Amino acid sequence: MSEEHVYPTGIGTSTSDSIKLLGQDLAEDVLGQVGFGELAYWLATKRRPTPGQLRMFEAVLVSLADHGYTPTAIAARMTYYSAPDSIQGAIAAGLLGGGSRFLGVTEDTGTFLAERIAALGDTSEFSADDWDAAARDVVASAKAAGERIPGLGHPVHKEGDPRTPVMFRIAREEGVFGPHLALFEAIGRVHPEMLGRALPLNGAGVAGAALADAGLPLGLLRGFALLARTAGLIGHLAEEQQNPVGPAIYTEVDRNAQYISPND
Amino acid sequence: MSEEHVYPTGIGTSTSDSIKLLGQDLAEDVLGQVGFGELAYWLATKRRPTPGQLRMFEAVLVSLADHGYTPTAIAARMTYYSAPDSIQGAIAAGLLGGGSRFLGVTEDTGTFLAERIAALGDTSEFSADDWDAAARDVVASAKAAGERIPGLGHPVHKEGDPRTPVMFRIAREEGVFGPHLALFEAIGRVHPEMLGRALPLNGAGVAGAALADAGLPLGLLRGFALLARTAGLIGHLAEEQQNPVGPAIYTEVDRNAQYISPND
Amino acid sequence: MSEEHVYPTGIGTSTSDSIKLLGQDLAEDVLGQVGFGELAYWLATKRRPTPGQLRMFEAVLVSLADHGYTPTAIAARMTYYSAPDSIQGAIAAGLLGGGSRFLGVTEDTGTFLAERIAALGDTSEFSADDWDAAARDVVASAKAAGERIPGLGHPVHKEGDPRTPVMFRIAREEGVFGPHLALFEAIGRVHPEMLGRALPLNGAGVAGAALADAGLPLGLLRGFALLARTAGLIGHLAEEQQNPVGPAIYTEVDRNAQYISPND
Amino acid sequence: MSEEHVYPTGIGTSTSDSIKLLGQDLAEDVLGQVGFGELAYWLATKRRPTPGQLRMFEAVLVSLADHGYTPTAIAARMTYYSAPDSIQGAIAAGLLGGGSRFLGVTEDTGTFLAERIAALGDTSEFSADDWDAAARDVVASAKAAGERIPGLGHPVHKEGDPRTPVMFRIAREEGVFGPHLALFEAIGRVHPEMLGRALPLNGAGVAGAALADAGLPLGLLRGFALLARTAGLIGHLAEEQQNPVGPAIYTEVDRNAQYISPND
Repeated sequence: MSEEHVYPTGIGTSTSDSIKLLGQDLAEDVLGQVGFGELAYWLATKRRPTPGQLRMFEAVLVSLADHGYTPTAIAARMTYYSAPDSIQGAIAAGLLGGGSRFLGVTEDTGTFLAERIAALGDTSEFSADDWDAAARDVVASAKAAGERIPGLGHPVHKEGDPRTPVMFRIAREEGVFGPHLALFEAIGRVHPEMLGRALPLNGAGVAGAALADAGLPLGLLRGFALLARTAGLIGHLAEEQQNPVGPAIYTEVDRNAQYISPND
Repeated sequence: MSEEHVYPTGIGTSTSDSIKLLGQDLAEDVLGQVGFGELAYWLATKRRPTPGQLRMFEAVLVSLADHGYTPTAIAARMTYYSAPDSIQGAIAAGLLGGGSRFLGVTEDTGTFLAERIAALGDTSEFSADDWDAAARDVVASAKAAGERIPGLGHPVHKEGDPRTPVMFRIAREEGVFGPHLALFEAIGRVHPEMLGRALPLNGAGVAGAALADAGLPLGLLRGFALLARTAGLIGHLAEEQQNPVGPAIYTEVDRNAQYISPND
Repeated sequence: MSEEHVYPTGIGTSTSDSIKLLGQDLAEDVLGQVGFGELAYWLATKRRPTPGQLRMFEAVLVSLADHGYTPTAIAARMTYYSAPDSIQGAIAAGLLGGGSRFLGVTEDTGTFLAERIAALGDTSEFSADDWDAAARDVVASAKAAGERIPGLGHPVHKEGDPRTPVMFRIAREEGVFGPHLALFEAIGRVHPEMLGRALPLNGAGVAGAALADAGLPLGLLRGFALLARTAGLIGHLAEEQQNPVGPAIYTEVDRNAQYISPND
Repeated sequence: MSEEHVYPTGIGTSTSDSIKLLGQDLAEDVLGQVGFGELAYWLATKRRPTPGQLRMFEAVLVSLADHGYTPTAIAARMTYYSAPDSIQGAIAAGLLGGGSRFLGVTEDTGTFLAERIAALGDTSEFSADDWDAAARDVVASAKAAGERIPGLGHPVHKEGDPRTPVMFRIAREEGVFGPHLALFEAIGRVHPEMLGRALPLNGAGVAGAALADAGLPLGLLRGFALLARTAGLIGHLAEEQQNPVGPAIYTEVDRNAQYISPND
């Protein structure tokens, strides 16, 4: 058998009388002892989280789980209305909206901060003043390049996103306040004087900073937003099964269609 | 504004300075205090689980999260290989395999048991003998109709699924061992004498029975299997990012293609 | 190499200097000589259509391509709005609504008619009276069983679907008017006297009958509706790129959300 | 009714007795008279193609419809195996692989050429020498920037993609050989001397150039590759229904899994 026939994996394997997951015996050591959020963290990183890391991680997932009638929730409800026999299709349709515009902020913020931090060298002894200085450089270079800083600003919570201070507090309580959260918080402090207006640090951005501090793979940060959103979509579909709004949304859009000549 | 313009929801809403989720203040009462599995349960049922219900529910999710190189994991890895710019597409592709053959057992078992239990009337005082009698009726009528009983049998764990006794034990420890688990367990006891061979109660079936006992909507049981599997798919994609097997699977299939004349 | 390593296919294969598709040389014999609709038919059946079969098949695809602001079109537009970087995600989200309620009529009608025809024996010499008699049996047994006849009725075209007579005419012109169309047409003639009201034969139902008469695989009829709809979804996304309505639909739904207590 | 309630569209609309598509009466003027490929072009551009444009467009779709056991075909077959009740899910899973690596070449090439041509000013009087000069600039600047030129090179057809000369010939026959094809062809002529090795112009790249010459929206070029691929996926699923390879692929991958310790 040639080399290429072998497909390595560290996730799971099973024999006739046992199932291994992440090197543990699933039945003896995992079921009833490892929570679902904990397992998700472990699967993504191959490291078991500490209690503090886990509390922060679950807070992030909870903060991202649902935002009401987002385009992704509407897409899932429309798809369920059209194909009620396929719950998996409705959830998949909802997740497919998890791209650059909505769920992308979490990943964009984590990646943006990680790139800036990589350029700072050793930040382990940074004071608040050091972070402010670093943040001024970040804001200045973004401003000079005409780039938006991800995670800054919110269409509804213009005066401040209520999730943000709570997430910072939990990170400090649990000892998982790392450089990404520190730089993000400092950006929040210094940008008003530099940009001439105060924008809130939004919850999706804090989530991205916290996931990056947790050492989760940057290329998968969007994946955690999608995991969180799956729970929210199940909530929407539960409502759609009991008290559907899909038909009313469809009717409303269809009867307000305005036909324009394709040659106009 | 006419009635149909209004889209009721009990999930979430927000104003400029607060976010409500399930009637709670997200920042003050939920973040850091409600775990992710707990939130998923709450979103689906609009009821907060008790600690025992939650431990059982998370055990179910954990038991369903990953089964190695399933067709759904292969589909997700193939899709990531082909379109690495779209994590959401790879996860959605994986979830789309969550249909009748693989992930469907959980839902099928829960639904099957619920239908049989509905016909039994009040089971609150049932003894083990009563459950065995009920199970004999269920097995007999399935046998007469030539129907398979969902949740019975496993292609690998032929002598017994190691998850099954642990799940039963956790349900008893937590006081959430309800009629669906009771009937399923009794089917496990009585079917060998009736069918002439002993089949294991499989883990996906126990999961379905446990979710039904938890009062989760029967029409959404597949949704929880999908939520669990999302965590597993993230694990597969994390491996694909670090140590991909997608290219080798593709090469292996492609070079073993055998062209047959379409007219044969 | 064991048997199971070989993956037979009759679709395509290639060597360094040639590409074969369906047993033809793609470059020499297919490109510029076989149309896209023709290829789709050939791929699905491994038979090249006659010109008459092809004209009918393309008429079916055209009839199914778009129906305006359907739930599937809305889902695709919402997904594009949320994730504009992933056209494939928006199209996939739209197709995922191709289930039992909307696009399913085509498949349901074809399957329904095929089952009834299989019970009729040889219909090659059937007169219009014979078909009427067969249709009366079909309608009577559906009525007795309390079943709806798929393809009958339309929410908008209550007096008659304008596509239906044209599709019947094309089938006759091209000599592809087979037993499925004959039985469906007869159902249209006899049902008013039997059900007490006249329902139109809808276009999706005629499409299903025509595809079944063409010998296309019954288990794939939904697939052709999906192929047709892909073209329609591209039209919607082209509009979304130039003159988006996604943001307005989202805003409209979100601002008419009505929060209800989850405990109500 | 406020402005935002109106959702303009030029695709379709219907009343109780007529259906309009693209400003035409669907039943009277479209069915049986407009082919499916023609309709797809019309939907995307709001312009009806000339016969020459249409022949070229269908040749492009045909060239992109299938490439055998690609990752997207494998994903669709895996998904069908796992969830045979949902054809739409299997097709959607296949399309979700239509991203940057596989189907993206068509879009990337069209966009790349369009950007370079925009910088050339009026090319209507360009001679072959002018195009060669322009191509030398394009290759030189790509080389200087260390960028790959999309559409150049093929893993199998190293000596030349057999589709490419045929596509160029059809474009010339039909009078639709525009600046994108001209620049792409010139790149094929000049790059060997500049890069020190001859790479084939691949078929996906020619397809992108031809679609761009046809005036199709650059932001939707991937959409046409997806439309084409939908036909190919239907072919794969038809095989999977008759002579499945999905189970064998799954078994082969699963039994060659190699468990590695997550801590290695």
